[in-house]
Amino acid sequence: MRKHLIPLAALLAAAPAYPQASANVAAGRAQPSPLAPSEIISAAPGGDWTAIAPSDLLVMDLAPDAKGKPRRVVIQLMPAPFSQGWVGNIRKLAAAKFWDGTSINRVQDNYVVQWGDANAEDKTKARKLPGDLAMVPESEYSIDHDILLDRVLPKDSYGVQAGIFAGWPLAFDDKIWPVHCYGMVGVGRDMPPNTGTGAELYTVIGHAPRHLDRNIALVGRVIEGIEHLSSLPRGTGALGFYETPEERTGIVSIRIGNEVSGLPGRANRRDAFFIRPAGGADVCNVPVPVRRVK
Amino acid sequence: MRKHLIPLAALLAAAPAYPQASANVAAGRAQPSPLAPSEIISAAPGGDWTAIAPSDLLVMDLAPDAKGKPRRVVIQLMPAPFSQGWVGNIRKLAAAKFWDGTSINRVQDNYVVQWGDANAEDKTKARKLPGDLAMVPESEYSIDHDILLDRVLPKDSYGVQAGIFAGWPLAFDDKIWPVHCYGMVGVGRDMPPNTGTGAELYTVIGHAPRHLDRNIALVGRVIEGIEHLSSLPRGTGALGFYETPEERTGIVSIRIGNEVSGLPGRANRRDAFFIRPAGGADVCNVPVPVRRVK
Repeated sequence: MRKHLIPLAALLAAAPAYPQASANVAAGRAQPSPLAPSEIISAAPGGDWTAIAPSDLLVMDLAPDAKGKPRRVVIQLMPAPFSQGWVGNIRKLAAAKFWDGTSINRVQDNYVVQWGDANAEDKTKARKLPGDLAMVPESEYSIDHDILLDRVLPKDSYGVQAGIFAGWPLAFDDKIWPVHCYGMVGVGRDMPPNTGTGAELYTVIGHAPRHLDRNIALVGRVIEGIEHLSSLPRGTGALGFYETPEERTGIVSIRIGNEVSGLPGRANRRDAFFIRPAGGADVCNVPVPVRRVK
Repeated sequence: MRKHLIPLAALLAAAPAYPQASANVAAGRAQPSPLAPSEIISAAPGGDWTAIAPSDLLVMDLAPDAKGKPRRVVIQLMPAPFSQGWVGNIRKLAAAKFWDGTSINRVQDNYVVQWGDANAEDKTKARKLPGDLAMVPESEYSIDHDILLDRVLPKDSYGVQAGIFAGWPLAFDDKIWPVHCYGMVGVGRDMPPNTGTGAELYTVIGHAPRHLDRNIALVGRVIEGIEHLSSLPRGTGALGFYETPEERTGIVSIRIGNEVSGLPGRANRRDAFFIRPAGGADVCNVPVPVRRVK
């Protein structure tokens, strides 16, 4: 393996990994060489992983790339108690095949990739939305709830505590809410804060835009295939929208995972590890391992 | 303009912009509608901008894209007192035309794009480095220095203070050092910390990998054309290295700006503004405006 730039794993390993280190300190033994995160993941027993049900996945198949290779993006939907009104809408939209034949319409560097009906604002051309979508109030962006977090991180630059719950990055004060890390998926909306149905979605492809937290609903995260979105050509129009229809990437279909064939199972590592190589860790830099299940 | 996702500008504008608000509060007048950052930048007088000398730019011309369009990436080199040993090497490498005919060799999603001599580790094929490159000690990653920062931000998730100096993101405790934000350019190296000459460079294309701070030298930042790097296909080898030479993107040339024709001047906005829409701001989310000069 080439070592021209310190790999992430080597640097994270500069501090001892959580479970091993504490056990050895307690026993008064010399500490072994710390394991790299990839080694910790490889060594993790099966019980450390939680299966992700196919019914909690949203599978987006893009048009094949220039070489004819398929492009599949797998999104894990946000679990209860967060954003369930929008997640419910997304299930209905997928069931109605609303997105089949729509497109990726916006790619803004260091910000977001956005997809949906490119004609949504043209009443003569807009696709018909399913009739039973909920109008979810903005109060659902952050909620009152008692949640046992897997990890709590120090107060961050945004003046709030952050933590990890079932692999999801959250922040809290008297409320609790999911945060905009790389790969998180949110609901595009117009200016009134409750106008987002879920028909227009985006994912973060840059530094965490945490100023969007509690301003927009987060409904999932990309767990496989984000490179098919993050490497798309950037749009040259305002906000990174493509200026011509030809620049858009077509969406063949978006389905809930149990409607898709050939989809391997997925598993989340239950206890998201993290370490503090630099005196702390940004919630958006906490690795949350996900693996395919045979 | 479409408004399907709250634009960054509108959200930042939710808090009043720095100079306008304080002036009006002092005068006891009603506050006007806050300006969006783009409006503040447009309205900024010429004296708010500092010219960037062409001799402080590194200009990388990639092979044209599939449609024959040129791809130019403009990097501002780090000013004194930071990383000057490596910056000096980079000036020598550019003068020696070391990078002409090299390539982009690594694209790792949410991490880095890396370029240089793909054969650097094969002694029979490696390009000859200029003979007078400095071996810069790792102690230069962070330095003792009195610097008047333009802005100081609260302590961040990494337990250090962050600030902005002449448009550059820094952090400090008893030392001061540049930090790994999106678009920052650093020096690839092997395991011994002083092995990086500057011949192998990378730029950040994801969430700020702050754990690299003080582990790797930062020597500049991309101020134009980062989309030509961030949208490249991701490498499928270990660490995102391309597995075949055909996947690499060729580098036609890398030159210091005053050696390049047709390069418009650049200017940094002197006083980097920031506001706190979410109770704080991450140093890597502080916008540092840069504009072309006619």
